[in-house]
Amino acid sequence: MASAGSIAALDLLAEKFGRLGGIGKRTAMRLAFSVLDLSEEEAEAFAEAIVGAKKTIHCCPVCQNLTDREVCPVCSDPTRDKSTVCVVQDTKSLLAIEKVREYNGTYHVLHGLISPMQGITPDRIKIKELITRLAGDSEVREVIIATNPTAEGEATAMYISKLLKPCGIKVTRIANGIPVGGELEYADQYTLQRAFEGRREF
Amino acid sequence: MASAGSIAALDLLAEKFGRLGGIGKRTAMRLAFSVLDLSEEEAEAFAEAIVGAKKTIHCCPVCQNLTDREVCPVCSDPTRDKSTVCVVQDTKSLLAIEKVREYNGTYHVLHGLISPMQGITPDRIKIKELITRLAGDSEVREVIIATNPTAEGEATAMYISKLLKPCGIKVTRIANGIPVGGELEYADQYTLQRAFEGRREF
Repeated sequence: MASAGSIAALDLLAEKFGRLGGIGKRTAMRLAFSVLDLSEEEAEAFAEAIVGAKKTIHCCPVCQNLTDREVCPVCSDPTRDKSTVCVVQDTKSLLAIEKVREYNGTYHVLHGLISPMQGITPDRIKIKELITRLAGDSEVREVIIATNPTAEGEATAMYISKLLKPCGIKVTRIANGIPVGGELEYADQYTLQRAFEGRREF
Repeated sequence: MASAGSIAALDLLAEKFGRLGGIGKRTAMRLAFSVLDLSEEEAEAFAEAIVGAKKTIHCCPVCQNLTDREVCPVCSDPTRDKSTVCVVQDTKSLLAIEKVREYNGTYHVLHGLISPMQGITPDRIKIKELITRLAGDSEVREVIIATNPTAEGEATAMYISKLLKPCGIKVTRIANGIPVGGELEYADQYTLQRAFEGRREF
């Protein structure tokens, strides 16, 4: 039963916030209260932004990255190196790489990682789209797999590398090691081991 | 400049989330991504809940509590004791008290606390509404001030108690002390001092 002080419209709004990833009950209620502090115009603009984002954002037909254009800005940029495809887990990873402004190739966004524990089989993520793309694009020379170095990320990287082997395309994996500015003292044994394995000559 | 990977509709949505209280840039972007995981119907229902809450929720003309009815459920409940008014900082405090289901009086919601540091003067919160209400309602016998025991909460309590003194209404303040289940070891000196001052005979 709702307590006497409860407000139906506020509870409904909190319930909607609660459907967003990683938002607990208390935070959902706090956010619902925050909406009441907006002006009516701001609240309407917020509502429109939600519907607008959902309506206009879709997957780029080339790289599967989220975009509100027909083809995403990276794929439609003639200055980007189309011979390299960097495979990432999601758009967040892509945005992180783009922020560095070092990588000039294209991407392929998987929208997930293989995870038998969570019932995510290879057909549930955009692996077949990658295979179809590579089969139809003879320009690609290298596929860099940049999934996170977690159990799922490693398994997905391994799966894709095995799939691509027969295609004769060079498949690489981003390096593991001590983060720049990090301390050996706080690195876990696996990272340290990989840092040694990946050592390079001066 | 936006990086090549940025998506205008997503950035706009993240900016809207960022206007809610206590939401930083990273969380705002995470929430914007979460919206994309909703179905189109869910996103529309979310948008409607925002506009709906903002449109229907207003202050109760009696106690200033947020409500989506003409008069709030507490004020319109004939079984509530109208001789006692509990003054609280905001609707969140009211909901916390209502949850306990012990207090059977009515409320007055200030929507803020006096804070000269933040430029919140007594006229910026709903103190005059309390005075007007008490002046027009001879039924009220006691005003319990239940603002938080912070510097601002104490100052506001003191200010209201001084204002009400000439009215001949009993003005009380909720007790400070060690929380039930708490440990003396971890209580600060002010709390301990108040706990001793407020000691009661068995």
